[in-house]
Amino acid sequence: MHLIPVGTDIMQANRETADANREAFLRNGVYAINIMSAPGAGKTSVLERTIELLKPTYRLGVIEGDLVTTFDADRIAAMGVPSYQITTGTVCHLDARMVHNSLHHFDISSLDVLFIENVGNLVCPAEFELGEDLKIMVYSTVEGAEKPKKYPLMFHEAEAVVLNKIDLLPYSGVSLDELTRNVREVNPYAPIFPVSCRTGEGLGGWIDWLKRQIDEARADRQHTISATA
Amino acid sequence: MHLIPVGTDIMQANRETADANREAFLRNGVYAINIMSAPGAGKTSVLERTIELLKPTYRLGVIEGDLVTTFDADRIAAMGVPSYQITTGTVCHLDARMVHNSLHHFDISSLDVLFIENVGNLVCPAEFELGEDLKIMVYSTVEGAEKPKKYPLMFHEAEAVVLNKIDLLPYSGVSLDELTRNVREVNPYAPIFPVSCRTGEGLGGWIDWLKRQIDEARADRQHTISATA
Repeated sequence: MHLIPVGTDIMQANRETADANREAFLRNGVYAINIMSAPGAGKTSVLERTIELLKPTYRLGVIEGDLVTTFDADRIAAMGVPSYQITTGTVCHLDARMVHNSLHHFDISSLDVLFIENVGNLVCPAEFELGEDLKIMVYSTVEGAEKPKKYPLMFHEAEAVVLNKIDLLPYSGVSLDELTRNVREVNPYAPIFPVSCRTGEGLGGWIDWLKRQIDEARADRQHTISATA
Repeated sequence: MHLIPVGTDIMQANRETADANREAFLRNGVYAINIMSAPGAGKTSVLERTIELLKPTYRLGVIEGDLVTTFDADRIAAMGVPSYQITTGTVCHLDARMVHNSLHHFDISSLDVLFIENVGNLVCPAEFELGEDLKIMVYSTVEGAEKPKKYPLMFHEAEAVVLNKIDLLPYSGVSLDELTRNVREVNPYAPIFPVSCRTGEGLGGWIDWLKRQIDEARADRQHTISATA
């Protein structure tokens, strides 16, 4: 049975908890990144590659969201990065409360960047703010060129779109041009990064952009802290 | 805002409507098949190939579920098969009520088989009965071998598992043996059909099995009708 407490606006309650998370991230100087995608698009692979390339520069931590299993958190822990697995049971997305509760398992003040890997689902995660600084999505090019039109919300909400598995494009019959045009139709501004986690192609551009977002946010915060001191 | 009427058990209400659908399908002699998968696994492609092969034998109809767009219903209509598109807006699965309402747009008494293509989502569709006779799932082998363990419910509920895009296996680094073992771990009984909708490989076995399910159900119904006459 799905029980909803009487009189609760679940989206409003989620926004309030997301605001509290945002405040905690700001206070502790940690930049939080929500990674969303359909199942199997390669969120964890993109995250592994990203961690390899950011680890020399930043102190990283990862929250993993899955229905069951700790496979993803185990993969991250194997890289020597603190990770915490949220298992949602049957819930098809992370919400702000789950992230809030998981913060008790981290010393976030010792981190520069916190990645939050959402449950694999191309629909609902985009509706739930977590208090993140940056929302990115990973999309598997093999899944077809028309999906941005059929599942527009996540493509619209993403502040960067990583198009993964481009090494399979020659075999899949999917047009990267058509896919890119369809992403643009629902999101005119977000940078689009075609990459392959298998071959490494395109990862440099993604990492350069991501570092810039992190560094600019940290500089802004430093500036705010100096100004109010 | 998400409003839930006070005191409603949404899963119980769904089951009751699903029972009404089941009764309508039985009364009209139509065999209903719910097709579920993650986005981009190839539900519509499997459906197109299946329609081609079943159309000479059965009178077919299709209900398509998507958040927005009528792309899939248009693809089916182009094959000369009656189709109706349910657009769910932001709802990430079909429920029995949506299917019930869509039946007003069909003369189901003139059909032998009704396919219901669910919204692309590896989680929630498996929780909502539609009143179908058969639940099948399509999984893209490119999405990785470990997904049956990470998203067990749909694999568990499916009465047949179609493993699509096997033509991409040599390039994707995914082991079909490992994937099959993982499906078996959460579902010991459902037949597993590795197929490629692009090359046609494996479709014969899938179609033979599906025809058998349809024919056996129709024979059972005929028997029940004769016995009660």
